[in-house]
Amino acid sequence: MNKTLMTDFYELTMAQTYFNENKKDEIVYFDIFFRENPFNGGYLVACGLEETINYINNFKFNDQEINYLRSLNSFSDEFLDYLKGLTFKGDIYSVPDGTVVFPNEPVLTVKADIITAQLLETALLANFNHGSLVATAAKRITKEAGKIPVMEFGARRARGIDSAIEASKNAYIGGCCGTSNTYAGMKYNIPVLGTMAHSLVTEADSEYDAFLGYAKSNPNNCVFLVDTFDTLRSGIPNAIKVANEYLKPNGYKFKGIRIDSGDLAYLSKEARKMLDKAGYNEATICLSNGLNEHTINSLLEQGAVIDSIGAGDNIAASKERVGGVYKLAAVEKDNQIIPKLKVSNDTIKTTNPGYKKVYRFYDKETNYALGDVITLYDEEVSDIEYTLVHPQETWKTKHIDNYVKRELLVPIYKNGILIYNLPTLKERQDYCTNEVNTLYEEVTRLTMPHEYYVDLSDKLRELKNNLINEHRNNVKGE
Amino acid sequence: MNKTLMTDFYELTMAQTYFNENKKDEIVYFDIFFRENPFNGGYLVACGLEETINYINNFKFNDQEINYLRSLNSFSDEFLDYLKGLTFKGDIYSVPDGTVVFPNEPVLTVKADIITAQLLETALLANFNHGSLVATAAKRITKEAGKIPVMEFGARRARGIDSAIEASKNAYIGGCCGTSNTYAGMKYNIPVLGTMAHSLVTEADSEYDAFLGYAKSNPNNCVFLVDTFDTLRSGIPNAIKVANEYLKPNGYKFKGIRIDSGDLAYLSKEARKMLDKAGYNEATICLSNGLNEHTINSLLEQGAVIDSIGAGDNIAASKERVGGVYKLAAVEKDNQIIPKLKVSNDTIKTTNPGYKKVYRFYDKETNYALGDVITLYDEEVSDIEYTLVHPQETWKTKHIDNYVKRELLVPIYKNGILIYNLPTLKERQDYCTNEVNTLYEEVTRLTMPHEYYVDLSDKLRELKNNLINEHRNNVKGE
Repeated sequence: MNKTLMTDFYELTMAQTYFNENKKDEIVYFDIFFRENPFNGGYLVACGLEETINYINNFKFNDQEINYLRSLNSFSDEFLDYLKGLTFKGDIYSVPDGTVVFPNEPVLTVKADIITAQLLETALLANFNHGSLVATAAKRITKEAGKIPVMEFGARRARGIDSAIEASKNAYIGGCCGTSNTYAGMKYNIPVLGTMAHSLVTEADSEYDAFLGYAKSNPNNCVFLVDTFDTLRSGIPNAIKVANEYLKPNGYKFKGIRIDSGDLAYLSKEARKMLDKAGYNEATICLSNGLNEHTINSLLEQGAVIDSIGAGDNIAASKERVGGVYKLAAVEKDNQIIPKLKVSNDTIKTTNPGYKKVYRFYDKETNYALGDVITLYDEEVSDIEYTLVHPQETWKTKHIDNYVKRELLVPIYKNGILIYNLPTLKERQDYCTNEVNTLYEEVTRLTMPHEYYVDLSDKLRELKNNLINEHRNNVKGE
Repeated sequence: MNKTLMTDFYELTMAQTYFNENKKDEIVYFDIFFRENPFNGGYLVACGLEETINYINNFKFNDQEINYLRSLNSFSDEFLDYLKGLTFKGDIYSVPDGTVVFPNEPVLTVKADIITAQLLETALLANFNHGSLVATAAKRITKEAGKIPVMEFGARRARGIDSAIEASKNAYIGGCCGTSNTYAGMKYNIPVLGTMAHSLVTEADSEYDAFLGYAKSNPNNCVFLVDTFDTLRSGIPNAIKVANEYLKPNGYKFKGIRIDSGDLAYLSKEARKMLDKAGYNEATICLSNGLNEHTINSLLEQGAVIDSIGAGDNIAASKERVGGVYKLAAVEKDNQIIPKLKVSNDTIKTTNPGYKKVYRFYDKETNYALGDVITLYDEEVSDIEYTLVHPQETWKTKHIDNYVKRELLVPIYKNGILIYNLPTLKERQDYCTNEVNTLYEEVTRLTMPHEYYVDLSDKLRELKNNLINEHRNNVKGE
């Protein structure tokens, strides 16, 4: 299905304005950026580029779209004819899926004719905001879990079926080892995982019967859900009984148990003792029940015994939001790039003008990320030494040398041609892990993380201040 | 695209267990219900039935699905052959989209063979949880806005493109007057609406040029966004200037302005004065900027002048979650309906057993909803008098008479045949408005709403207690 019209109506009325004003060939630059890290965290994992590539590759107004727009009596025939021939012919630069990024730096830049660039806003933001929310949630949870694998179980609480499928994929990029979502498994070739539900137990004549039946039908994937009636007095004893009477005699491994309610720290420790005492040291303990990075951290501190984690709500259906925006940064006039800015009474909402690049500095020895600098596209950044300035409190500075620098935004489209090879999902997952590993613990910690430096180059800061003053004077003059 | 596999993997491994245990023809009853109102509110607007009907109508394992499942080496050929022939042959009862519902009462009941019923869980929950979240968010906001129309502008912050489209539709059911999402407008025939973005203003040589250009291209839909530089000193004066110089002389109406930042109460009052003074009493004021039911309530209390509202984030991308669950309530054995229950250490998580109905009592004179009662399917409820019991604090009771009662769950499918005519979207919107109008203000208020009575019939309460005791004795006995 063609989803080109998944764009806000005002993009179209503005596009018609540009068309009528003979601006249709004007080249403009739009940036996606966000203003605040979600989860009160210290970073964001950027994601959603794959969905954006899909959207752009299918960006086309066919008869159905044109006829619908015509029926609204808001658009001229000339404009609709123009839309009908429109395809994406511009450039896109973006951070790869899985990159760690920070407030106010461009994470994606569109360079295109003004009509196309304007029409892309809504879909590109929805893709970025959703992808990054899920990948960040997954990364925060998997990071806290450390070596304990985290399975994504969130489909049932996601924002609809399609959102669930996208979420399962982006959770994998964020570090989950697999998903319960079978469709996502098929579509993206992600491992599909699962244990059993309470309904299997309540349906059967007894918990023992349920476990035995499940073991017979799924002997190689037998993780018993033990909390339907009473974890320690019923669930675990029945699981051990089935292991003794069926799994062991038939040469199958007792894979483990899952605990989905109650005091998980206490129950998991007791469970471990019971399983060991019965001779099943290899039987694993899976914990679930609305777990997030904070509860996982707390469980580990309490000495909970955890071999794997099932997390759903807080990955695929997290109660957070990524507030990515899409702002005009520059227009081309007579082959000149004219920087543009939106001022606001709220300083944080004033945009960074111009066609820009972002560099990240890494300590040559430790590979830790030292800070980012946003520059104008034609600026050089020294390879030798640099002074980073705190984003808000500009009197705080950090002098660095002995670093390597890396440009964050990579070319995705050039003149409408996709020139980017999307890495495999596994490659994106590994890349994301490496990305987060470059961050100091101060930046990734759960409570009051250190604010990572995102500097403006002197030239960009000067440009921004000049434009702000220009606007102030214009307003005063009126 | 066939989305049948949008089901948790364990549904399939459990289904295989039922198949191997020769239970495939066993008829079971599953209920969807939720345990807590979102937004700390007093009610939920149920939604997502349309998506569920779409899912069930397309529920079918084709070659692609079967081949994928076979590749997982977890399923027998016999079971996969059985899946291949499977279609939905059961019954579904559900509250219609737009119904107000309350914690712990069934909002949808599936009666089907155990394999089908189990496989439907994930998708039906995702549909209910997403649809109800959006419809409830929209209803809370539109209710607070009263007669002020609320436009849904949330696509860019939604959980992906498809989630945005679904959200726009369900927001309309929840009372929004239209959406900015053009695709949703086309697909669902919802009014599409919008004003202009800051980029239009920053792109132009001046705010005045931008407004004039837009007015010329969209003279009948001209709402000027006035806060790009300075609302009172630049935006509104420029809007008035364009109205004076272009709209008025050419016979077009000055439709209005939108304010998207700053102190909306103060700015809207000043804006009204300026517009009136310039002779544009008819020019409307649209407010936006992360508005929700609480900020709208506060703005109105402060005497803000509001003709329309644009709300996005808090409808299509709300930071909440509906936690609907899908629990086995009964199985049929020898033509007997055997009630089933999941106990839990957490009383609130213990389910209501049996095949059930829900009745709502309305005051005959005022039409206010007095309370609900959940009964077993074969119970009679008096038309004359009834004593409602508080859901948790059972010593609190309310005796009622002079009421009419209504059964909430209506038949959707019978023996696999869809027998329900989905009302039009407008009908569902009107129905939803009526539904909320039957609630006492104590139930709908934003702060500390009154807990609506959802009673269990004496027979159901007795059954539940007996089953709980039975399970306790079983556990003790082991």
